[in-house]
Amino acid sequence: MINKWRIEETKFSEKTSGKHEALMTLGNGYMGIRAGFEEDYAGQCRGFFIAGTYNKAGLNEVTELPNIADVTAFDIIIDNERFSLLMGKVHEYSFALDMKTGELKRELIWENSGNKRFKMIFRRYVSLENRHLVCSKISIEALDEGAEVKIKSGIDARQTNSGVQHFYEIEKRVYEDKFMQYIQRTTESSVDIYLNTFLKVKPDFNKSFTIERRKLLEEISGIIRKKEILEIEKISLVYTSLDKEFNAENTDIGLYSLEKIKELENSTYDELFQKSSQSWKDFWEKSEIKIKSSDEFDSLAVNFSLYHMQIMTPFHDNRFSIAAKGLTGEGYKGHVFWDTEIFMLPFFLYTNPKTARQLLEYRYINLDEAKKKAVSKNFRGALFPWESAFDGKEETPEFAAINIKTGKANRVWSAEKEIHIVADIAYAVIEYFHVSGDSEFMKSMGLEILAECGKFWVSKAETDPETGKYVIKDVIGPDEYTEHIDNNTYTNYMAEYTVSRTVELFEKLKSTDNGLYLKLSEKLGLDKELPLFKDFTQKIYLPKPDKNGIIPQDDTFLSKKIIDIGKYVESDSKQGILKDYTRDEVVDMQVLKQADLVMFLYLFKDKFNSEIIRKNWYYYESKTIHDSSLSMAIHAITALYFGEKDIAYKCFQKACLIDLGSNPNSSNDGIHAASLGAVWLACIKGFGGVSENNGVLSINPLLPDVWEELEFPLVFRGKGLRVKTCKEYTELTSKSDDILEVYINGKKYELKDYLKISY
Amino acid sequence: MINKWRIEETKFSEKTSGKHEALMTLGNGYMGIRAGFEEDYAGQCRGFFIAGTYNKAGLNEVTELPNIADVTAFDIIIDNERFSLLMGKVHEYSFALDMKTGELKRELIWENSGNKRFKMIFRRYVSLENRHLVCSKISIEALDEGAEVKIKSGIDARQTNSGVQHFYEIEKRVYEDKFMQYIQRTTESSVDIYLNTFLKVKPDFNKSFTIERRKLLEEISGIIRKKEILEIEKISLVYTSLDKEFNAENTDIGLYSLEKIKELENSTYDELFQKSSQSWKDFWEKSEIKIKSSDEFDSLAVNFSLYHMQIMTPFHDNRFSIAAKGLTGEGYKGHVFWDTEIFMLPFFLYTNPKTARQLLEYRYINLDEAKKKAVSKNFRGALFPWESAFDGKEETPEFAAINIKTGKANRVWSAEKEIHIVADIAYAVIEYFHVSGDSEFMKSMGLEILAECGKFWVSKAETDPETGKYVIKDVIGPDEYTEHIDNNTYTNYMAEYTVSRTVELFEKLKSTDNGLYLKLSEKLGLDKELPLFKDFTQKIYLPKPDKNGIIPQDDTFLSKKIIDIGKYVESDSKQGILKDYTRDEVVDMQVLKQADLVMFLYLFKDKFNSEIIRKNWYYYESKTIHDSSLSMAIHAITALYFGEKDIAYKCFQKACLIDLGSNPNSSNDGIHAASLGAVWLACIKGFGGVSENNGVLSINPLLPDVWEELEFPLVFRGKGLRVKTCKEYTELTSKSDDILEVYINGKKYELKDYLKISY
Repeated sequence: MINKWRIEETKFSEKTSGKHEALMTLGNGYMGIRAGFEEDYAGQCRGFFIAGTYNKAGLNEVTELPNIADVTAFDIIIDNERFSLLMGKVHEYSFALDMKTGELKRELIWENSGNKRFKMIFRRYVSLENRHLVCSKISIEALDEGAEVKIKSGIDARQTNSGVQHFYEIEKRVYEDKFMQYIQRTTESSVDIYLNTFLKVKPDFNKSFTIERRKLLEEISGIIRKKEILEIEKISLVYTSLDKEFNAENTDIGLYSLEKIKELENSTYDELFQKSSQSWKDFWEKSEIKIKSSDEFDSLAVNFSLYHMQIMTPFHDNRFSIAAKGLTGEGYKGHVFWDTEIFMLPFFLYTNPKTARQLLEYRYINLDEAKKKAVSKNFRGALFPWESAFDGKEETPEFAAINIKTGKANRVWSAEKEIHIVADIAYAVIEYFHVSGDSEFMKSMGLEILAECGKFWVSKAETDPETGKYVIKDVIGPDEYTEHIDNNTYTNYMAEYTVSRTVELFEKLKSTDNGLYLKLSEKLGLDKELPLFKDFTQKIYLPKPDKNGIIPQDDTFLSKKIIDIGKYVESDSKQGILKDYTRDEVVDMQVLKQADLVMFLYLFKDKFNSEIIRKNWYYYESKTIHDSSLSMAIHAITALYFGEKDIAYKCFQKACLIDLGSNPNSSNDGIHAASLGAVWLACIKGFGGVSENNGVLSINPLLPDVWEELEFPLVFRGKGLRVKTCKEYTELTSKSDDILEVYINGKKYELKDYLKISY
Repeated sequence: MINKWRIEETKFSEKTSGKHEALMTLGNGYMGIRAGFEEDYAGQCRGFFIAGTYNKAGLNEVTELPNIADVTAFDIIIDNERFSLLMGKVHEYSFALDMKTGELKRELIWENSGNKRFKMIFRRYVSLENRHLVCSKISIEALDEGAEVKIKSGIDARQTNSGVQHFYEIEKRVYEDKFMQYIQRTTESSVDIYLNTFLKVKPDFNKSFTIERRKLLEEISGIIRKKEILEIEKISLVYTSLDKEFNAENTDIGLYSLEKIKELENSTYDELFQKSSQSWKDFWEKSEIKIKSSDEFDSLAVNFSLYHMQIMTPFHDNRFSIAAKGLTGEGYKGHVFWDTEIFMLPFFLYTNPKTARQLLEYRYINLDEAKKKAVSKNFRGALFPWESAFDGKEETPEFAAINIKTGKANRVWSAEKEIHIVADIAYAVIEYFHVSGDSEFMKSMGLEILAECGKFWVSKAETDPETGKYVIKDVIGPDEYTEHIDNNTYTNYMAEYTVSRTVELFEKLKSTDNGLYLKLSEKLGLDKELPLFKDFTQKIYLPKPDKNGIIPQDDTFLSKKIIDIGKYVESDSKQGILKDYTRDEVVDMQVLKQADLVMFLYLFKDKFNSEIIRKNWYYYESKTIHDSSLSMAIHAITALYFGEKDIAYKCFQKACLIDLGSNPNSSNDGIHAASLGAVWLACIKGFGGVSENNGVLSINPLLPDVWEELEFPLVFRGKGLRVKTCKEYTELTSKSDDILEVYINGKKYELKDYLKISY
């Protein structure tokens, strides 16, 4: 029986440690802590990441989120034997993340080599109420006989990113014989991390403190009698010198955080947990998608997506954005990609628009760097980095790892060629404005981003001497198996769309707020630029369906060789095709890593009739290996555009398995954030049929057969709605009385507080 | 039954991993590799150290020997289950270091969770013949049924020094689908390490190569049938940019080492092992101490000492010396202390004088730094660093770890106050000359060292206004529980002795080689200095026995408070007294960490009659906690000076247990090098009664009752001897016909090729 709120393991296995560590990560957007066990195992990979604390560890290393000192480990010695599930016997076992409350809990009965049984419960959460707070609780009950117990726990700064150490040790102290404080500093970016922790132990045990190199530990020891329960609570607070609250003042953060931990001296795990789970409750009320279905797995997968989007997003600080693996692992080094704007941002836009705005503010803050990058490549405007970290500089490594056999370095072209990110960000700005109606944002930031993106496209476009059209040459589209191509359909349409909208928005501004328009015009040179923008939109080459109705992915794609990709699609191991073919060979085939033309159809469905969409979907799907986690959910949504709900549902289920599937190693380096965002997209923009057209909401639900009902919250232009849809009807409710114009299944309605469309 | 050649464990236990890793370390003076298991365990600490490759890892870190990339790990998957002795059942188990051949071998029968049994043999050695070579061999036999086996092994550069990473990754490559090469560079000292390795597998298995972050691995996989044996040999070569052979030319070491590993393509583990074990055979022939005793443990302990002195000593390069933990762990950070000259050098002096000379050359190479240190402290001459590493700079941290409770840093005074190291080095130079007769060394280096040491003492001494004597104030003697004292007896006598000898040596040089004398005189200012040296020796205050016959350790020691130290002596945990008393309180007590006045008696036994030695021995022994491993063996030797062979033997046995005792954690950070040297001292200078007086050999054996016979080799003034002694006689044999004057039990003899003194 699936419990839609629980990610769980019912059997201990070393093999799945990478998976459960990532999937059951606890977090709150400020920090993420992988779900490593309290006790150590070879191969276990603890991970503790704090948003924005990027560091570059020197020669040949790339800026990444460092793995900070651990507070989750407990070394437990019972009757002089180290507690490990590899030893003795495990009689009952359950290990689960409760996504409803954000608590990780492991319950088991362990029999040691002396045939004594112990009931052990391990609990842990990262507070959603106080973003600096982490709490653990361990209880050990001697079921058969008394036992001698020794436990060591504290702060362990020996953690590395796969062997790379990012920190200097600054200080380790014990205050008042209770509070441990450890301060570490990143080696290059000089971010200080302040870890504070203390233990509460019942019954009274002996205690002492020890230091080892890069460790500060408390050891407690004593006897538990038969049926007695030993309880240890560990309360930890973590701050960094990046924290916004310290920006203005010259706070001694060591002292400040020590005061804060002292304030928690009399707090309990449970009491602090109540506060955190209340915050989780608030979150779920605002976000939960309810699916009535015979298969609870879908609900579980959707909850999993939402849970992770909540813990991966740095709500607290607009200087940071969402990393491709969230805060769940070392993969992609904590860098920010187009994933944020195209795959994750819509969830926030439709449930928590403040956060969506903040994610766009991150791009605005880094606009200057994007302009510098454009200049460095001889363009104008803003060329956003393909991979972004703390300061908006391009973080994509120029070369991938050297080919170990040839010794040749594979050039990574994404930073230079995957320029569709400029349009992706502009698209998100426009979508944000359409859905939120937040003109204040547009006036203060959004329009400026759009103008700089427009300038980039104008400077990037070349005139084709034969046709006189503008063409965009030598790019990489969303599909990264196809490089150095001209006129990628996705890119050209996105450029055209965003630049057209930019022109419209500025023209509207001119008439509604001429003062601001003039100010912006001076700053951005609109007098000169807007005519260029218009010229661009008129002359940009937009590929059309060929005689068979197939829209070319780019100028040459359709003329490339076609191979049978079956074995690569079925394979569990990613990029299997690169074992049989070189990268260059793959570039010359009609083989896609991920949705590209289909990605285009997803965003531009109204440009084509459903027959064209259908034809293209089948054409391209048969050539797509789905070696990217960004692919499957988009295929699900687009299949719905031509009514194929069964195929859509199959794609959706595959997308849900990207992290939740049986491959024990697919998430070792972290969950797939964009894919989780895409699961939400598939539910709401896909089956729920939600879209917007120039600021007008449209709902065209099409549920899979196994779904009896789909219910979800939406915020649209400031109005909070609930949408419920099933075979019989679609129902919209709102608590506010503002009128909202809405199209349901293509028909226009005015929604006040309630609307029900029966079929 | 003890096998005197085997350090072994007959039962697998996680708890003793730190101990066996250090004790069973393999090495050859160039490199040391801790005896970590092939498979991973939580808490296992792999260690691979190469002499001289010191690096400082940045802020708040101390220069240390870095832990280089590992080549010993094998990840073994049998029937989809990771091989670990924590899982399944272990039916037979033996794990042993054979010190006679330098091979580490583990044999076991493992039953996996599918109830299949496998006979597994793991072998490994570091070549004593080719110092760059490390070989492993694994064999797996399926005893019950066939099985699927996957093994990954290669080069793993994720190793750290307790979380501190010392390396940048420079390159990882696979050549000719076989040879793996990994290049890493220390972050500050820019030493490049070149690791080259390949696997040979029988029968033919599938193979492939993979890279992970900081890892380069080969994976082999296949099926072994019942009774079939899978054999994997791994041959590795390691070079560094420090290697002397590359100093002169501009060699591409990557290419060079690749050629070298290719040359070994057709070599086998066994064939290369034969060469290495022949070198071990040669070593033992030159060094073995044979003890006929009812208790084989003594022989084991002595072999253990000799084995480790052989693998810890960088014979290949006079720019390096012996670290306090050899190359067996992170303890003392690979630094060189007085331990080398006073505790380890005599072994080489009496068995392999070329190495003894080389260890002194290390000091000569760093003489300029010692002179700079003297100047910086307002002295003249040479003030050698208390802790020395690559360039002879003082490496002692100025502060010990901050007291975690008070937040106050404990000042470490050793660098400034433990100046007896200046005399210790001079003493070793003189002893070297006396025993080897190597006047070439004295002329080219030794005399210069002595003169600079002499200058230091002259500049350090102050005139006592009351007595007119020279006093040496505010020092730390060998006993580090006593700080800031005046006229430490050990220090004053050592200064007097070394400066007197220096004067004599220069006077002798004047008459035998006036040309060189004049040259040195000009360089060293002897015209001015020698009168100062004489004046120093005449007026230096040398403490004498008081009315009770007790020689004061320093000016104030005998007036300090006496406490009962019983509980601290018995305790297994070091420095227990510092849990009850502050450091300052301990300084004000008659409590010794280690031999100090007794250390003095050890070196100056002829200055006092045996009654005085006895009285002082008992007085000081009762106040010594032996919290230093440098203590117990010295007490053993000095007890023999007053004929107490039983007590001496008890002390000797305790000294043998410093590493070989039952405490599973006492050697985690590495073996105790000085203590191992002292075990040799106790055998040869103690029970064997070997000493020298101004270049004349003296032998006064006194064996413990349980020893029937003691036989050992000696090299004295170029003549190779064997000494055999028992209750009935002492016998000396030599292969050379040169006449050697020797005192046996106080009586003078002339040894040609054979001499037997019957009792």
